Amino acid sequence: MSKGSDLRRRAGQVMPAGVYGHVSTRLLPDAYPQFMSRAEGAYVWDVDGNRYLDFMCAYGPNLLGYREPSVEAAVAAQLAIGDVMTGPSGIMVELCETLVAMIGHADWAMLCKNGTDATTLAMTVSRAHTGKRKILVAEGSYHGAAPWCTPFPAGVLPEDRAHIIKYIWNDTPSLEAAVREAGDDLAGIIASPIKHDAFVDQMLPDPAYARRARQICDQTGAMLIVDDVRAGFRLARDCSWSLVDVKPDLSAWGKCFANGQPISALLGSDKCREGAASVFATGSFWFGAAAMAAALATLRIVRESDYLEHSIALGEQLRAGLGDAAARHGFAIRQTGPVQMPQILFEGDADFRIGFGWAERMVKRGFYLHPWHNMFLCAAMTPADIDATIAAADAAFGELRRDMADLRPHAALLEILG
Amino acid sequence: MSKGSDLRRRAGQVMPAGVYGHVSTRLLPDAYPQFMSRAEGAYVWDVDGNRYLDFMCAYGPNLLGYREPSVEAAVAAQLAIGDVMTGPSGIMVELCETLVAMIGHADWAMLCKNGTDATTLAMTVSRAHTGKRKILVAEGSYHGAAPWCTPFPAGVLPEDRAHIIKYIWNDTPSLEAAVREAGDDLAGIIASPIKHDAFVDQMLPDPAYARRARQICDQTGAMLIVDDVRAGFRLARDCSWSLVDVKPDLSAWGKCFANGQPISALLGSDKCREGAASVFATGSFWFGAAAMAAALATLRIVRESDYLEHSIALGEQLRAGLGDAAARHGFAIRQTGPVQMPQILFEGDADFRIGFGWAERMVKRGFYLHPWHNMFLCAAMTPADIDATIAAADAAFGELRRDMADLRPHAALLEILG
Repeated sequence: MSKGSDLRRRAGQVMPAGVYGHVSTRLLPDAYPQFMSRAEGAYVWDVDGNRYLDFMCAYGPNLLGYREPSVEAAVAAQLAIGDVMTGPSGIMVELCETLVAMIGHADWAMLCKNGTDATTLAMTVSRAHTGKRKILVAEGSYHGAAPWCTPFPAGVLPEDRAHIIKYIWNDTPSLEAAVREAGDDLAGIIASPIKHDAFVDQMLPDPAYARRARQICDQTGAMLIVDDVRAGFRLARDCSWSLVDVKPDLSAWGKCFANGQPISALLGSDKCREGAASVFATGSFWFGAAAMAAALATLRIVRESDYLEHSIALGEQLRAGLGDAAARHGFAIRQTGPVQMPQILFEGDADFRIGFGWAERMVKRGFYLHPWHNMFLCAAMTPADIDATIAAADAAFGELRRDMADLRPHAALLEILG
Repeated sequence: MSKGSDLRRRAGQVMPAGVYGHVSTRLLPDAYPQFMSRAEGAYVWDVDGNRYLDFMCAYGPNLLGYREPSVEAAVAAQLAIGDVMTGPSGIMVELCETLVAMIGHADWAMLCKNGTDATTLAMTVSRAHTGKRKILVAEGSYHGAAPWCTPFPAGVLPEDRAHIIKYIWNDTPSLEAAVREAGDDLAGIIASPIKHDAFVDQMLPDPAYARRARQICDQTGAMLIVDDVRAGFRLARDCSWSLVDVKPDLSAWGKCFANGQPISALLGSDKCREGAASVFATGSFWFGAAAMAAALATLRIVRESDYLEHSIALGEQLRAGLGDAAARHGFAIRQTGPVQMPQILFEGDADFRIGFGWAERMVKRGFYLHPWHNMFLCAAMTPADIDATIAAADAAFGELRRDMADLRPHAALLEILG
């Protein structure tokens, strides 16, 4: 039995149903490795020693490459002094100053651990600031795994979402209808900066929609919240809606700004400083200095390197190469979203059997892609990595073409998709 | 200007109202340092170089002494391989197996980051498992900073607590009344293992109360949840209610089981495995391997060393010495709770001015005590440390006696206490 199979069997005994959450491979082709043994640069190794060029980047945290030397050095240096202590290190102030200096709309910062901490805090601060209750959330957007927002609501009560009103992302009439429904009780509007929902094409924001959301908040006093946990610093060195020239009142950050060390943040403007000051928010490890040191080192590279332009160039190379390779084998693929955060779906693939077939043939070749979740490029990838990916894709498309009649939909996925 | 004062001023600009959460010194005497520069063993140093024997232990995470060598080595070794990756390390399975082997009631584990993650997940799993809604929570108990439980409910809505019913901890008739109020809709009862509420004496559980809670859950199918985030592994090498021979269905853990590395856990029995499997719970950093490596190293020491007996012996030495010293100067102090998690309050001190006066005189002498929150001893403390604490306390009590007429209540604290 492989190490991976043995670990899966044991995990099934000591976790409720094996590995849970976003890293579970239950909704991926069977060939996907569940457990990893090592990560370095753009690569991960599974517990059986297979190496993969990793287009998931730990689902976001890996921005610069795993174990980026200056970030690792900052963590080691801080751990040698002190991490979680009876009071924060002075670098907490330095990190808040850095974030406020880098992010155009921000006058203050609160650091936390999970992305969900930051989005939930954004909701709470909005309610505390406005004294109102309704929060507008786009249908299908992921904002975390708390009762008010988790996408699979087992154990969640209607009351947990009593004052959540749904609207359609990027659809101004739908947003306006939700605002009317909120009446004079609108506390905030939360939006992903781009549409990066699972299972569907990604979408960039219509500037008119983003501006209208800003205008509504200005008119009503509600808070405009951008959930930049997934896309933050992947699209810009500022809040992602700086690309459409719209400043939110609050923005939630996480995943990659410490290149994998556990830290998230809520950033806000002076407008809601008092509301933020009134909310009690804390966690046992929120003031740990090692993750803050990693954030300072990561943000220095964000400011001083071409990591972003490099990632975009690689993404363009990948998108062009994959499009050509797919066409050569008669596949029509939809590559959506920013090139450095690609989503790749197949035309005519309602039950995802083609996408799963292709992803499986790629992972077996050592390229870890995802058949229904947006992917991420990291700055440690090289043009040669992308060339190798395109060559492997060409071979995988060819094999897939021959195997089309044998493809079957994935049982667990079918269940989720209804 | 001292470094500490300068950092406070800057923090007030880039955080909503300076340092927030449980590490804020806003509700402590002015002499308390807000920012720390270093931690080692039983000591912390503030940013101006002053050293303190630290009786807060980072509010719990420091169990064995800051920077315990074998834990630090495990973290460094794991960071050199990989931490947050596209999939968990195999040591996640090893850690879940370890927790299940050590904790009597547990058949499975889910690892997370914040203590609040674990307690909130316990609530959600209880509701998912039972299909019922009501959760019984003791008045004044701290279970985290989420909308359903935060002690300062700015930004929280009545709906967030619509199905929370309050009872009095350790009071069986009150518990039974709350159960009657829940009717046939009881999902769970959550209890701290000991009463360790802020501002009041601590209390050990009456075994009859704990047994009655177990019996009610057995009769109704509700989940019995022990919130061991703060006291776990401080009282026993098993769930803290093993001391009264009561097994919960779920227990929440955090703070100290990785000796300061960020990790928490929900442990559960087979009875609610299916409910747990149905709940979607995840976080960007929950599967990071460095904190898991730290947990494995910490739990090895928990099993193989006399850390617990050593902490209890130090606690007994401290309690006896402080009682004598206080009496010598005509003060009546109440030292409550387990000796290794002491709460120290003064008789006749309704507005806490005496306690604040004493704590201030201790912190100036280099002993970081807390005037209204339970404290923690760590295994790195020595009998000589405790002797030094008692000698300093004797001097501080003497000075306090002379200064009694000048003591004033603390303005921010008075506001909180109403």
